Amino acid sequence: MWNDSNKYDRGVNTFSPEGRIFQIEYAFEAVKMAATAIGIRTEEGVILAVEKKLPSRLMDPTSVEKIMEIDYHVGCASSGIAGDAKTLADHARVETQQHKFSFNEPLKVEAVTQSIADLATHFGEGSEGMKDKPMSRPYGVSLLVAGCDEDGPQLFVTDPAGTYLKYKACAIGSAAEGAQAYIKESYKDDMTLKEAEKLSLQVLKNVMEEKIDQHNVEVASVEKETGKFRIYRTAEVNDIIDTLS
Amino acid sequence: MWNDSNKYDRGVNTFSPEGRIFQIEYAFEAVKMAATAIGIRTEEGVILAVEKKLPSRLMDPTSVEKIMEIDYHVGCASSGIAGDAKTLADHARVETQQHKFSFNEPLKVEAVTQSIADLATHFGEGSEGMKDKPMSRPYGVSLLVAGCDEDGPQLFVTDPAGTYLKYKACAIGSAAEGAQAYIKESYKDDMTLKEAEKLSLQVLKNVMEEKIDQHNVEVASVEKETGKFRIYRTAEVNDIIDTLS
Amino acid sequence: MWNDSNKYDRGVNTFSPEGRIFQIEYAFEAVKMAATAIGIRTEEGVILAVEKKLPSRLMDPTSVEKIMEIDYHVGCASSGIAGDAKTLADHARVETQQHKFSFNEPLKVEAVTQSIADLATHFGEGSEGMKDKPMSRPYGVSLLVAGCDEDGPQLFVTDPAGTYLKYKACAIGSAAEGAQAYIKESYKDDMTLKEAEKLSLQVLKNVMEEKIDQHNVEVASVEKETGKFRIYRTAEVNDIIDTLS
Amino acid sequence: MWNDSNKYDRGVNTFSPEGRIFQIEYAFEAVKMAATAIGIRTEEGVILAVEKKLPSRLMDPTSVEKIMEIDYHVGCASSGIAGDAKTLADHARVETQQHKFSFNEPLKVEAVTQSIADLATHFGEGSEGMKDKPMSRPYGVSLLVAGCDEDGPQLFVTDPAGTYLKYKACAIGSAAEGAQAYIKESYKDDMTLKEAEKLSLQVLKNVMEEKIDQHNVEVASVEKETGKFRIYRTAEVNDIIDTLS
Amino acid sequence: MWNDSNKYDRGVNTFSPEGRIFQIEYAFEAVKMAATAIGIRTEEGVILAVEKKLPSRLMDPTSVEKIMEIDYHVGCASSGIAGDAKTLADHARVETQQHKFSFNEPLKVEAVTQSIADLATHFGEGSEGMKDKPMSRPYGVSLLVAGCDEDGPQLFVTDPAGTYLKYKACAIGSAAEGAQAYIKESYKDDMTLKEAEKLSLQVLKNVMEEKIDQHNVEVASVEKETGKFRIYRTAEVNDIIDTLS
Amino acid sequence: MWNDSNKYDRGVNTFSPEGRIFQIEYAFEAVKMAATAIGIRTEEGVILAVEKKLPSRLMDPTSVEKIMEIDYHVGCASSGIAGDAKTLADHARVETQQHKFSFNEPLKVEAVTQSIADLATHFGEGSEGMKDKPMSRPYGVSLLVAGCDEDGPQLFVTDPAGTYLKYKACAIGSAAEGAQAYIKESYKDDMTLKEAEKLSLQVLKNVMEEKIDQHNVEVASVEKETGKFRIYRTAEVNDIIDTLS
Amino acid sequence: MWNDSNKYDRGVNTFSPEGRIFQIEYAFEAVKMAATAIGIRTEEGVILAVEKKLPSRLMDPTSVEKIMEIDYHVGCASSGIAGDAKTLADHARVETQQHKFSFNEPLKVEAVTQSIADLATHFGEGSEGMKDKPMSRPYGVSLLVAGCDEDGPQLFVTDPAGTYLKYKACAIGSAAEGAQAYIKESYKDDMTLKEAEKLSLQVLKNVMEEKIDQHNVEVASVEKETGKFRIYRTAEVNDIIDTLS
Repeated sequence: MWNDSNKYDRGVNTFSPEGRIFQIEYAFEAVKMAATAIGIRTEEGVILAVEKKLPSRLMDPTSVEKIMEIDYHVGCASSGIAGDAKTLADHARVETQQHKFSFNEPLKVEAVTQSIADLATHFGEGSEGMKDKPMSRPYGVSLLVAGCDEDGPQLFVTDPAGTYLKYKACAIGSAAEGAQAYIKESYKDDMTLKEAEKLSLQVLKNVMEEKIDQHNVEVASVEKETGKFRIYRTAEVNDIIDTLS
Repeated sequence: MWNDSNKYDRGVNTFSPEGRIFQIEYAFEAVKMAATAIGIRTEEGVILAVEKKLPSRLMDPTSVEKIMEIDYHVGCASSGIAGDAKTLADHARVETQQHKFSFNEPLKVEAVTQSIADLATHFGEGSEGMKDKPMSRPYGVSLLVAGCDEDGPQLFVTDPAGTYLKYKACAIGSAAEGAQAYIKESYKDDMTLKEAEKLSLQVLKNVMEEKIDQHNVEVASVEKETGKFRIYRTAEVNDIIDTLS
Repeated sequence: MWNDSNKYDRGVNTFSPEGRIFQIEYAFEAVKMAATAIGIRTEEGVILAVEKKLPSRLMDPTSVEKIMEIDYHVGCASSGIAGDAKTLADHARVETQQHKFSFNEPLKVEAVTQSIADLATHFGEGSEGMKDKPMSRPYGVSLLVAGCDEDGPQLFVTDPAGTYLKYKACAIGSAAEGAQAYIKESYKDDMTLKEAEKLSLQVLKNVMEEKIDQHNVEVASVEKETGKFRIYRTAEVNDIIDTLS
Repeated sequence: MWNDSNKYDRGVNTFSPEGRIFQIEYAFEAVKMAATAIGIRTEEGVILAVEKKLPSRLMDPTSVEKIMEIDYHVGCASSGIAGDAKTLADHARVETQQHKFSFNEPLKVEAVTQSIADLATHFGEGSEGMKDKPMSRPYGVSLLVAGCDEDGPQLFVTDPAGTYLKYKACAIGSAAEGAQAYIKESYKDDMTLKEAEKLSLQVLKNVMEEKIDQHNVEVASVEKETGKFRIYRTAEVNDIIDTLS
Repeated sequence: MWNDSNKYDRGVNTFSPEGRIFQIEYAFEAVKMAATAIGIRTEEGVILAVEKKLPSRLMDPTSVEKIMEIDYHVGCASSGIAGDAKTLADHARVETQQHKFSFNEPLKVEAVTQSIADLATHFGEGSEGMKDKPMSRPYGVSLLVAGCDEDGPQLFVTDPAGTYLKYKACAIGSAAEGAQAYIKESYKDDMTLKEAEKLSLQVLKNVMEEKIDQHNVEVASVEKETGKFRIYRTAEVNDIIDTLS
Repeated sequence: MWNDSNKYDRGVNTFSPEGRIFQIEYAFEAVKMAATAIGIRTEEGVILAVEKKLPSRLMDPTSVEKIMEIDYHVGCASSGIAGDAKTLADHARVETQQHKFSFNEPLKVEAVTQSIADLATHFGEGSEGMKDKPMSRPYGVSLLVAGCDEDGPQLFVTDPAGTYLKYKACAIGSAAEGAQAYIKESYKDDMTLKEAEKLSLQVLKNVMEEKIDQHNVEVASVEKETGKFRIYRTAEVNDIIDTLS
Repeated sequence: MWNDSNKYDRGVNTFSPEGRIFQIEYAFEAVKMAATAIGIRTEEGVILAVEKKLPSRLMDPTSVEKIMEIDYHVGCASSGIAGDAKTLADHARVETQQHKFSFNEPLKVEAVTQSIADLATHFGEGSEGMKDKPMSRPYGVSLLVAGCDEDGPQLFVTDPAGTYLKYKACAIGSAAEGAQAYIKESYKDDMTLKEAEKLSLQVLKNVMEEKIDQHNVEVASVEKETGKFRIYRTAEVNDIIDTLS
């Protein structure tokens, strides 16, 4: 198996004899090594929570940007290569701004997600029809896209293959499997946003190697009532942590 | 045999000594690993039915888009790499819109199919005469294109080699062989669209590993009477499943 | 021999130490694996006949397009990669239309053939002086070009090397050798078009693995009297088959 | 391990089977071999201090430019390939000038850092949307970016992966580990800039192989009071060294 | 020797350690495998004669174009890859037409030859200063260029290295050596064109494997008296053959 | 070690696992094989002296150009590949002329040096922002740049890595190590230009394999008093040689 | 040694670990295999003499062009690949014409030589600032450039590395070493042009394998008196040969 695979994995966008594209599969591995991120959708809104791995205590934790606002009504949490996450988010920001400028209305959450997936799909040679020239390799990152529009609160997940799916709740990153199992057990369709907040951090607490505190996790939400995406202040995060078991 | 083949398969568009182009053959393998899709043409219209593989129960099944509308009178079901299917469908959508704009009439179903096959044929270096620059590798997807025009209901199948053929009924994907055999037995030239609906799901039920339900299959039809392509709502799918043996 | 050849065959357009260009030789192999096609020229016109390999009985045989009209007075039958045949024929169609538009007269049959051979010759890097950018590999197809102009009925054969030759009668494809031998025996310079029709299908019948019927062969002719190229309807094909021994 | 890695490390921007990008990891090694640089942020300002390795006593030590001013309020110290550091700093200089020209205000320190990280991220193929075409390999350098704007004194660290993080204090280069440990012990949130000056050189003294003097280290600061970045004169450096234990 | 050479022959335009360019040497091999061509210059004019290898008796021999007119006063016979010969001749035709258009006088025979050699020299990357973009490999063909201008009848020979030389008489192709020896014996400076006609076919007769007839050889001449290049009709060729011993 | 290095040295601009860029290191080797060059800076001016290796006594020694004027106030001596030295010097000449034209003042010596280093740094892919497209490999040459501006006499040294440093005195080339040791011993900060002249040739005499004479060395100086760079006439060189021990 | 070298010689413009560029060294080998050429400079003018290797007695010796006029006052003799010599000479012709057109004076001999060396230096990727795009490999030819301008008669030698040197007398090609030794013995600074004529052919006679005659050597001179470059007629060459010992 090994001997076969390594013959086909250097052409970035080439099929192996079994019909597989190894560079995409390897990019998934980059996500599997990355810090865990969790998204939970409720009727009242969507919660994003991510683990932050800090190389040094002398570092300013606020500069590790794992959750990024894309537009006032939509944001994302990333698991994988930080620079790739930023490139995809920047691309989505431009798309949302251009849409607002052209049509005088915000871009729908699914369309935001799709613009990310489009860029991710076209890695390899540049597709001239696109605004940004994609990278020569797949983007080594998955994004949890949380937003709110006329269809209510929504949670999408993009992956290195350029696929996006809609989820009620999802965990990505190194502890995805354990986290996903935990969420499945506890998720209820009628959860409140408050319960989702707590659940998301409870899950992170369980799967993180470090002791959870307000500096090594980040939380954000988009609320149906306000329609706004916002990243929580450290104090708020601390308050939720205090309620965990 | 193996030793020979692996010397020629990395040049994406190169002949082997036996006159074969391996990357295209490997792309066919990508289709053979993918979820099954079925198309059945009757005098009253065409039915498309596809299996949806859901990674998680917390996922919103409606976001797995296996059947896509191309124009009001034509759509497609895919088996293979999701991103490639979307690229081909998007290409066809642009072509149909441009045709309508230029000639004030819908593009015929075969022409829609041909625009997909054209893009698929020209993988490798970009052909400057085409609107979209094709990918550097073959598209790892087959599409069932179902539509209705002045020539009545029609079903076409495109493949990774850029060939398209017209079928009365066809199955593609991992269970293509078994499904095809089953359809062959049951297909009748004078079937009603209702019978085709039921047959398509009966076949999927037989070949799917998971138990069939309204969330893990998708159904669409184009009817001769209305000339419209539409994707079925979950309730409708459920109703058909209830009638299966 | 084998060990030597495989050192030189990956550069698509490179000489081996013996002065050979392997990719072109391999493309000839693609033709040798393909369904057989036959062309017979008489004083009254030219007959083209091809075998169609149908993957499934549920397929619409009319959608396997082995014979293509290029202009009202000229058409072609292909043996080899279907997509390559279509690309070459499309190229010839554009050339004939442009000629008619510029000079108000149909393009001569040899000039049609030459435009196909020109595109085929220039595989590899794109030659900027040409309208269509050629493929990165040789075209894996041979075409029988049949047409009628002021020089009377003519039959040309193009090959993957971009050479074209004029023939009285010719067979290409997997059974070329046997078919050619059979034609040579039976061909007469004063044959009627009717006799050529029958001979072409008799030859196909002899060399085909499947039993010949009106669905797995295609026939076309260009007649001197009318100067028109036309593809036979299934009923007509059937009538000829009924006369075979 | 070794045998595996060397199969994937030549494609500059390609994933290995474990999801790693070796060229970026190797570029980090270039930083690990380089002279040490230290940055310490206090409420009063930021100190940068770097070791200078002088190939010859006949060399003019002032020409080894390890600390570079980017704008009047921001500068950087580098550890790694000198030419790469210069390219990144030049890029940042252009960005800051263009910003001032367009908006009549200085570019914020984080934005300066981000412009450096952006260029570093996009190594490999050139991204057409950027003003400078990035290099074909990762930039083999880390930068300590020190500046002062309306958010007060700030210290950022960029790395070969194009990531940037905000630090209170940080050491990079061959002695980063030892230096970092020493700083961690001694750093206090309420240090004065004078104390930071001394600490930075004390750390360098401890980790340098050569005896520290005013010619083989460089020091710079940005002060909150003046808002200005400036590189210390040799005499000033000498004065600090005299105070070291 | 063999082991060494195959390390250097894949770069199309690269020196080997001994200062050789293997692709050019291999292209000469393509000429050595090809049908023989002969050129004889006399005071009265130049004769070209070539062997035609016919794949089938059902082929129209007139379509194997080994001798091509370039302008009314100059033509060429080729030995090697037919498509390459055509490309070079087409290039020369354009050059002669452009010259006539610009200067209102025919291009001199040596200048015609030089335009062919120029294109042949610049294989590899395209030289932007040239009208036609050259091929990526050397042209696998030698041409005998025969013409008449104010300097009288002239015969030039071009080869795959892009060199051209002036000859009194020359043979190229698979039987070049034997033919050359035969010509050398029989050539006289005061030969008539009639004698040269006969000598050229006599030589071909001696070296051809097939029995010579009017269909498997082609003859052309340019006469000093008329200054015109013309290809002989089959009957004329037959008449000469009848006179051979 | 050797086995490892040769896996990474063919990509011209690629990191090895240890963070090294081998093509740059190999380019340094080209300098280490080249004829020795020496630069000595005094308060009164800068002296450049180089060894000239003459392939033949029949050669005109003045045509071996090792020292080149860049502008009236600055010049350079090279050690390494002659053509690369010329390319860098030509680049610097254009930069100085453009500066004078734009700003009506001579370009400062450090800026001249930097323009050389800039071109050298950007080997590999062309950086579009630069006037000259850099070479595909590193420049295999070091330059001693000597000049005089408002900051007085200055000596800079550029290397194949694109780094430049300021020196009081420096030797480059095959005998750099020995020469450097000799200079270090004899150099004094208050040397006169005359003493530097003599020292430079004394050093060359010591390290050269051939006997030194006025034909196999070249000398140049830039004097503070005149501010002019000039290359010495043979007679002048001879006069200095006569004074050597 | 051999094993090492063959790892580095395929990148056309890449350093080996020892700092060597093998393609340039191999190009020198192409010169070492070529026919010998000799240049001798006297106070009265410069003589060029070259050996011509004729493949056949039926060839017109005047068509082997080893000596080429560049402008009325300067010409060159080549040893190496004929096509490369022609390309370089053509390049120099364009440069001299453009200079005359722009400045109304002939281009100096050294400047002519430099334009040839410039093109030769920049092999590999095309340098956009040059009029002619250089070849992808080094030019496999050395040129003896002989000319006369206000500085009197001059002889330059260019080589595949793009270096040019000024010589009193020089021999290049397969017999360079022997010829050079012979010239060195006989050369006198006060030779007449007549003596140089004789010496040049005497040397060729000594080193040629074939017996020297007026057809297998070429001679040219540029005289100080007339300032004109001219190629000798066969009779003149014959007259000199008759005087040889």
